[in-house]
Amino acid sequence: LSTLRHLADGDAILKGLQSVFEEQAMTETIHTWEDHGYLATYINKNGSFASLRIYPHGLVLMDVQSYNNDLKGKEEIDNLLNKLEERMKELCQGNIGRLKRLPALVRGGKIDKYWPTADGRLVEYDIDEVVYDEDSPYQNIKILHSKQFGNILILSGDVNLAESDLAYTQAIMGSGKEDYTDKEVLILGGGDGGILYEIVKLKPKMVTMKYMRKTCGDVLDNLKGECYQEIPHGVIKS
Amino acid sequence: LSTLRHLADGDAILKGLQSVFEEQAMTETIHTWEDHGYLATYINKNGSFASLRIYPHGLVLMDVQSYNNDLKGKEEIDNLLNKLEERMKELCQGNIGRLKRLPALVRGGKIDKYWPTADGRLVEYDIDEVVYDEDSPYQNIKILHSKQFGNILILSGDVNLAESDLAYTQAIMGSGKEDYTDKEVLILGGGDGGILYEIVKLKPKMVTMKYMRKTCGDVLDNLKGECYQEIPHGVIKS
Repeated sequence: LSTLRHLADGDAILKGLQSVFEEQAMTETIHTWEDHGYLATYINKNGSFASLRIYPHGLVLMDVQSYNNDLKGKEEIDNLLNKLEERMKELCQGNIGRLKRLPALVRGGKIDKYWPTADGRLVEYDIDEVVYDEDSPYQNIKILHSKQFGNILILSGDVNLAESDLAYTQAIMGSGKEDYTDKEVLILGGGDGGILYEIVKLKPKMVTMKYMRKTCGDVLDNLKGECYQEIPHGVIKS
Repeated sequence: LSTLRHLADGDAILKGLQSVFEEQAMTETIHTWEDHGYLATYINKNGSFASLRIYPHGLVLMDVQSYNNDLKGKEEIDNLLNKLEERMKELCQGNIGRLKRLPALVRGGKIDKYWPTADGRLVEYDIDEVVYDEDSPYQNIKILHSKQFGNILILSGDVNLAESDLAYTQAIMGSGKEDYTDKEVLILGGGDGGILYEIVKLKPKMVTMKYMRKTCGDVLDNLKGECYQEIPHGVIKS
């Protein structure tokens, strides 16, 4: 729960919110913090914990942690956040720049659903099953099942591809409008093998896949099938 | 940063991690908490703040907050987390079930990048511009620009559709393999109007779009164009 106000009055906000925590019988510890505003922590007998951070510039952050993921615990936290939100609105009299409540982060659970993107964004997938999880001599290999994306391949924590990517592969291949029978085909890149996998089904004469040695090393060297060959970047001759 | 151990020894972990925070000259407050383990908070002179939560079952959670999003601040936090991670590994001697570090949540920033899915999952988009943000008499309307998805329409906090969804619309329409010229077309659903928008370009004779009155109310009643009509569910006659 974070709120941005134009005018900061941290002391008033702190006092105004305290009674909400008191109602939940939470034990308070307050730090006033020179030029950095306030930090208050609240611990509950049932093991849940809240931190309230009030920055001098007007940013107010509230975090609530609870151990149990049961329905009663969720209701309690929702209830607390609803009351805090209501009180904040009263205290700021509508003068709130933004009010945002994020879904709970589930940490330490049986299935880890958070797989950040290559550019460092946090994404939670609807993963319902760990299909495979082993360390090879090269990397950790995970296959996780998502309701939305099907099986997802994750290599050392990086999301590589999912069954749902088939649509993209098919689009790249021309959505069925291209006839590959007995044709010579050149794939530039395509390192995950998805395009190659689909295209050999269409009985081409020869598929040549050109991949980056820098990324792939020598694992694909000399990989040759009945109607395909994989050769590293720089080896192709016209 | 969260870690799952099979055997909990909270006291040893707390003591082992304390020196890492001390090195950063952070002020410590510790709560021991009956059957609920430990909570320690650490505040720094520069305004950053950490909480350490050690559950009796062996779950260890660390959260670090800092106000400034500058490079130096990020480096400091990465540095702290690296040291904590290293120390945890030493303390647990490899006996760690899982060790996970999530990307920083940016709260109170100029652009809000977190738009949860309909099923309550946290997703961070690569949004770089707020194109439009207004309240209509019915709802809040946002158009945010994402590098990955193009412009995204968000109605009252719900992600509706993005420019990148055009691929799905085209797939639904048959990827160009269907000829719609002078045909009678029936769209069932399609409430966001994307299919209708694309299909009228293909000069059909008449498109009839049948939508759910329950969801859409009467906003689309009597909406009729040169070659299309939108009628609510239940009004169609064969």
